[in-house]
Amino acid sequence: MAAKKIPPATKAQDDTRDFGLGSKITQQTRTRFLNRDGSFNVERTGYSFLRSLSPYHALLSMSWAKFHSMIVLSYFLVNVIFGFAYMLCGPEALQGSGATTLAGRFLDSFFFSIQTLATIGYGKMSPSGFAANIIVAFEALTGLFGFALATGLLFTRFSRPNAKIQFSEKSVVAPYRDITGFMFRIVNERQNQLIEVAATVTFSRMESHNGKQTRRFYPLMLERQKVTFFPLHWTIVHPIDEQSPLFGVTQRELEDSDAEFSILLTAIDEIFSQTVHSRSSYKYDEVVIGAKFRDMFVPSESGITRVDLRRLSEIELV
Amino acid sequence: MAAKKIPPATKAQDDTRDFGLGSKITQQTRTRFLNRDGSFNVERTGYSFLRSLSPYHALLSMSWAKFHSMIVLSYFLVNVIFGFAYMLCGPEALQGSGATTLAGRFLDSFFFSIQTLATIGYGKMSPSGFAANIIVAFEALTGLFGFALATGLLFTRFSRPNAKIQFSEKSVVAPYRDITGFMFRIVNERQNQLIEVAATVTFSRMESHNGKQTRRFYPLMLERQKVTFFPLHWTIVHPIDEQSPLFGVTQRELEDSDAEFSILLTAIDEIFSQTVHSRSSYKYDEVVIGAKFRDMFVPSESGITRVDLRRLSEIELV
Amino acid sequence: MAAKKIPPATKAQDDTRDFGLGSKITQQTRTRFLNRDGSFNVERTGYSFLRSLSPYHALLSMSWAKFHSMIVLSYFLVNVIFGFAYMLCGPEALQGSGATTLAGRFLDSFFFSIQTLATIGYGKMSPSGFAANIIVAFEALTGLFGFALATGLLFTRFSRPNAKIQFSEKSVVAPYRDITGFMFRIVNERQNQLIEVAATVTFSRMESHNGKQTRRFYPLMLERQKVTFFPLHWTIVHPIDEQSPLFGVTQRELEDSDAEFSILLTAIDEIFSQTVHSRSSYKYDEVVIGAKFRDMFVPSESGITRVDLRRLSEIELV
Amino acid sequence: MAAKKIPPATKAQDDTRDFGLGSKITQQTRTRFLNRDGSFNVERTGYSFLRSLSPYHALLSMSWAKFHSMIVLSYFLVNVIFGFAYMLCGPEALQGSGATTLAGRFLDSFFFSIQTLATIGYGKMSPSGFAANIIVAFEALTGLFGFALATGLLFTRFSRPNAKIQFSEKSVVAPYRDITGFMFRIVNERQNQLIEVAATVTFSRMESHNGKQTRRFYPLMLERQKVTFFPLHWTIVHPIDEQSPLFGVTQRELEDSDAEFSILLTAIDEIFSQTVHSRSSYKYDEVVIGAKFRDMFVPSESGITRVDLRRLSEIELV
Repeated sequence: MAAKKIPPATKAQDDTRDFGLGSKITQQTRTRFLNRDGSFNVERTGYSFLRSLSPYHALLSMSWAKFHSMIVLSYFLVNVIFGFAYMLCGPEALQGSGATTLAGRFLDSFFFSIQTLATIGYGKMSPSGFAANIIVAFEALTGLFGFALATGLLFTRFSRPNAKIQFSEKSVVAPYRDITGFMFRIVNERQNQLIEVAATVTFSRMESHNGKQTRRFYPLMLERQKVTFFPLHWTIVHPIDEQSPLFGVTQRELEDSDAEFSILLTAIDEIFSQTVHSRSSYKYDEVVIGAKFRDMFVPSESGITRVDLRRLSEIELV
Repeated sequence: MAAKKIPPATKAQDDTRDFGLGSKITQQTRTRFLNRDGSFNVERTGYSFLRSLSPYHALLSMSWAKFHSMIVLSYFLVNVIFGFAYMLCGPEALQGSGATTLAGRFLDSFFFSIQTLATIGYGKMSPSGFAANIIVAFEALTGLFGFALATGLLFTRFSRPNAKIQFSEKSVVAPYRDITGFMFRIVNERQNQLIEVAATVTFSRMESHNGKQTRRFYPLMLERQKVTFFPLHWTIVHPIDEQSPLFGVTQRELEDSDAEFSILLTAIDEIFSQTVHSRSSYKYDEVVIGAKFRDMFVPSESGITRVDLRRLSEIELV
Repeated sequence: MAAKKIPPATKAQDDTRDFGLGSKITQQTRTRFLNRDGSFNVERTGYSFLRSLSPYHALLSMSWAKFHSMIVLSYFLVNVIFGFAYMLCGPEALQGSGATTLAGRFLDSFFFSIQTLATIGYGKMSPSGFAANIIVAFEALTGLFGFALATGLLFTRFSRPNAKIQFSEKSVVAPYRDITGFMFRIVNERQNQLIEVAATVTFSRMESHNGKQTRRFYPLMLERQKVTFFPLHWTIVHPIDEQSPLFGVTQRELEDSDAEFSILLTAIDEIFSQTVHSRSSYKYDEVVIGAKFRDMFVPSESGITRVDLRRLSEIELV
Repeated sequence: MAAKKIPPATKAQDDTRDFGLGSKITQQTRTRFLNRDGSFNVERTGYSFLRSLSPYHALLSMSWAKFHSMIVLSYFLVNVIFGFAYMLCGPEALQGSGATTLAGRFLDSFFFSIQTLATIGYGKMSPSGFAANIIVAFEALTGLFGFALATGLLFTRFSRPNAKIQFSEKSVVAPYRDITGFMFRIVNERQNQLIEVAATVTFSRMESHNGKQTRRFYPLMLERQKVTFFPLHWTIVHPIDEQSPLFGVTQRELEDSDAEFSILLTAIDEIFSQTVHSRSSYKYDEVVIGAKFRDMFVPSESGITRVDLRRLSEIELV
C-alpha cells in the first residue's frame, strides 16, 4: 500500500462519477434515468411491500379520486361492521327500531351506526343493555379517531406546498454572449410567489474508459444558480466554455452517448414559508442545438411589465 | 466559435442584469416594479384562471370579511341543497315534522339538515326510510369533511407567521462616517421577537447602452447584511463609496433614470421557529438626499432603553 | 465629499458597534439589556396596544392558567349570550322546557345552548319556530369554529417545540490550555435530543471615546461554535488570547464598564425537526474570575458515561 | 500569563477532542457511546423525572400499543369519573333512566357520560336539574378538548417525518482507487424520496497521552459529504490516506483502542419538505478489514436500473 500519491478527498468530490447518487452505474440503457415529471426511472426490489410502505406518504400521493373512494368505502365498511355488531346484540338492543325482518333490522342497525359514528344521535333509536352501550362507546371512539385521521389527511393533502414549476418542452443550445449556452426556461404556473429559486443541473453520458462503457455525470456551471425573486420567468443558462463537457458537442454525439440533463430546483414558497422541490430532465432528443427561446414579454398599454406564459416553450432557429 | 476569451461563469454572476429575476427587462416604464406592500407590479397572461389558481393560497390570502362570507354562504347553500333532498324523499321521510305546507316542509327539512350537518341531532325530527337515512349518511360525511377543511383554513389563517415589518416612509442619503450612505429604517410592528433578520437591497435604473435603453440592476453592499437580534429598530445602510452605483448621484439623476430600490428581508419568527419574508421598495421620489433620520430613543426614568416607534419615518435635513 | 479613503463595507461589518441590533446605544444604564430568561429589557412606545398586538402570539405565550380561564370564560359567555337569544324567542321556542319562571326559562335556554354549541343535542328540549332554528344554525357554526380555534391553540401550545436549555448560574474565567478562557456551561433539561447546537456570544461594555461614553459590542471567538450531538453538557469557551477584548481584564474593570455577555443558542429539536432558540446573558457580577467548573461526570457501575445535572453550576476557585 | 504563543481559536476547532459534544471523556469503557439504533448510551441523573419530562415528546415516542392503551384507558376513566358525578346528583338527575339498583344506576350514568363526552346525545336519557346540566357543560368541554389533544397526537404520530434509513450490518475497509477506504452502505427503506442526503462520520478511540488514557475523536473526511438524489443506495467512503487516523490500522489495533465510528445523516424528506435525521455507529467488531461490498445492481429485462435491497449488507473478502 504505497501512499505517495493519493487522490485527495477534495479532488475526489469534483470527480462526480455518480451524479449525487453514491452509486456507480455501468449498465448501458436507453431509458431515461429521471423522468420529466421528476420521478426516478429505477426499480428497487428485495423488500416486501409492507416494509417499504410508508402509509402516510402513500395516502398523500394517491389521486384525489382514489382518496375519496377510499374514505367513502371505509366509512361504509365500518358502519356495516358496527351495524352487524348491534344486530348481534339481539332485537331488544336497539330501542325505537320497529323493524321485524332481518333485512329491516340490519338496515336500522346500519343507520343507527351511522348516527353514532358521526355522533349525531337523533335518539329515535337508542342503545339498550350493556352490550349495545359498550359497542356505542367503542364506535364513538372509532368515529372520533377515524374522522380525525381522515380529515387530517384531507387537509394536509389540500394544504401541502406543491410548487407547480413548468419547464420549457425543449432545451436549446443558443448563442450566449460571445459563445453559446445550454438553456431552458421555467415559469411558476401558480399565482403564489416563489423566492430564492435555485437550480442544479447535471449532465450525464455514456463514456468509453479502457474499452468499458460507464455512465459519467458532470455538474454544469450556471450563469446564476439562484434568483431572489421569480415573478416572471427564468432562463437557466449553462455557458458552454472550454471547460464545459458540452464544448463543441453535436446533436449526433449527444444521441450516441445517450446524453441526459437532470435538473433539481429548490425554492421557498412564500405563503408556506417552506422549501419546495421540483425535478425534471431533458434527454438528448429534447435538446435543440442552434435555436433560441422567443421573448415572452408582450406589450401592455398600462406600461406594466407583462409576460405571456404560453410562449414558454416557443423557440426559433438561429 | 472562438473560445479564447470566454466570460467566466463566476464573473457573469456579478453582472446582474436581471435583478435575481432571470429575465432581462428592456421595456421602458415609469411604473414601479415592486410595490411598497411587497407585491410585484407585473402581469402574467396566457394561462387560464383555473390553471394558475392555487385554491389553498387563494383561501389563505383573501380578506377575513371575504373568508367569513364564503363560509357562511357555503354553509347556507349546503343546507339548502340537503334540505331539498330530504323534501324530495316525501312527507314521511322526516318523522316529527308537523309541517303541511310546502314552505313549512322545506323549512323543516332545512333545519333538520342543519341539525344533521352539525351532528347535533336533537331527534325531534328524525329520518325515516332508506332514502332519508342514506342522505343523512352522506350529509354527516360532508359535514365532517367540510368543517374540517373550513376550520383547518380558519386556524391556518389565524396562526400563519406574518411578520409585520414596517419600513420608514422615505429613504435618505445621509452622512455616514466620512462619506455618505443610502439608508432606510425598519421596525417590527408586533410584539413577537424576530431574530437573524437579513436584508438584500437592489438598486435598478434605466441606462443607455449603445443607444438602447436597458434597465440594469445592482445589488448594494450593506454595512451589515444581518442582525442577530431585532428588539428595537434597524437602520439599514449602504455606504456610498467609489464602487457604489450611487456614487455622486443627484436627485435629478435618480428621477431621470427611473431609479428604484427593491428590498427583501428575511427573518426568523421565534414563536413559530419559521422563516418569514418581507418585501418593499423605494422609488426615486421616496429618496431624500441630504437628510438623516432622527433618533428614536426617548429618555426613560427607569434607565431602560426605550424607543418611540412613531419616530420611524422622522427625518431632518442636514 | 472626498472619496479617497473610504472605510470598506466589509471592514465596517467587523466594527460591530451595535450588537446585531442595527441601533447605536449611547445611553448609560446599569440595567441589563438582555435578561437571563432571554427577554429583552427594552421599551417600545408609540404604537397603540392593538397595533402591536399579535393575537396568536399572545395566546401562545400566556400562562396555562390564564389560557384555561379564558377558554372557560368564553365558553360560559357565549352560552349566556345564546341563552338570552333563545329566551327572547318566546316561551314556545324551546319545546320540552317546562320552566315557567324567568330564572327557570333562562337556565333551560342556557343549558339548551350548551347542548347545541357542543353539538350534543339530547333533544329533550328542541328548537321550535323560525327564529330559534336560525339561532341554532348560527350557534352550531359558532361552536364548530370556536372549538376549532380553541382546540387548535391548545394543541399548538402543547406541541410547540420549546427547548429547555439550562445555563450555569455563573460564568467563569478559568485556565484554558496555556492561557485562560471565558466559560459557561449548558445542559438540555429535557429528555429529547437536540442536535447541531450553535452558540453566539457577544461581549458589550461602556467605553470612553473622545470623552463620550458609548456602549461597544464585541462578538467573542469561541473554541467551537457548534456541536453535532448534545447528549451530555457543553462547556462553551472563549479563549482569552491577545486579540480578545477580555485580555487581562479584572473583575473591577468588568464592573466599572458595566460589562454584559449576551448569548444566542440555536439547535435542532430532533423530534420536531425544527430549529429552536434560546437566549441568556451574564452581567459583570455573574462572572467569576479565577474559578473553574467542577467535573459533572459521576462513576457508574455499568461503565456507561453518566453525568449529574445538578452539578451544572458548581464551580471551584483555582 | 504569558501571551506570546497562544493556540489560536481556529486551530482549536480542528483539535476535536470532544466529538461535537463539548464534553471531554476520559473514562475508559467498553460500552458503545452511540447505539446502532441512534440512541445515546449515556445516563443523566440529578433532575427529577418531572423536570426532565417533555410530555409531548414522550407521547410521540411511545409505542403504538402503549399509546392506544393509554387513550382507551383515559376514555374509560374519564367516563367512570363523570358517571359517578351524575350518580351523585341523585336518581332524578338522569331522566329516562329506568335503573333502580345502584349498579344499574351507575351503568346508566356511565353510558350517559359516554353519550355526552362524545357529543352523541341520543336523548333517551337527558340531564335534569342544575347540577347534572352543569356537569354536562363541563363534560362537553372536557370531551372536545380531550379528543382534540388525543386526535392531534394521533395524527402527529401518524404524519411525523420518520426517515427509515438502513445501514449495512458491517462496515468494511476495502480497496479504493490506489489506496483503501473505510466504507459502509445505506438505503432508504421507504418509497418516499429523500434528497440532499449528507453524512458526518466521526472516528473515536482511546489513546495514551502522557500515560493517561483519553478518548479522542476524529472527524473523517469523506469522498463526498452529500448526495443530491438518493433513489438507489449510497456507499459512504472515507479514503484512508496518509492523513487519515485509520492509516495502516489493523483489526487488533481497532479492538485494543476500543474504536467506534459514529454517523449522523441528515436529509430532506420531499413529501414533508422537512429535514430528517438518522444516527448510527459501528463498533470495532463491526468493521471488516479486507472485504468489499457486493454489487447491488441486478439485471432487468426492461433495461431500467434495478437494485436488490436485500444485498445491502452482503460483503466478500478481497
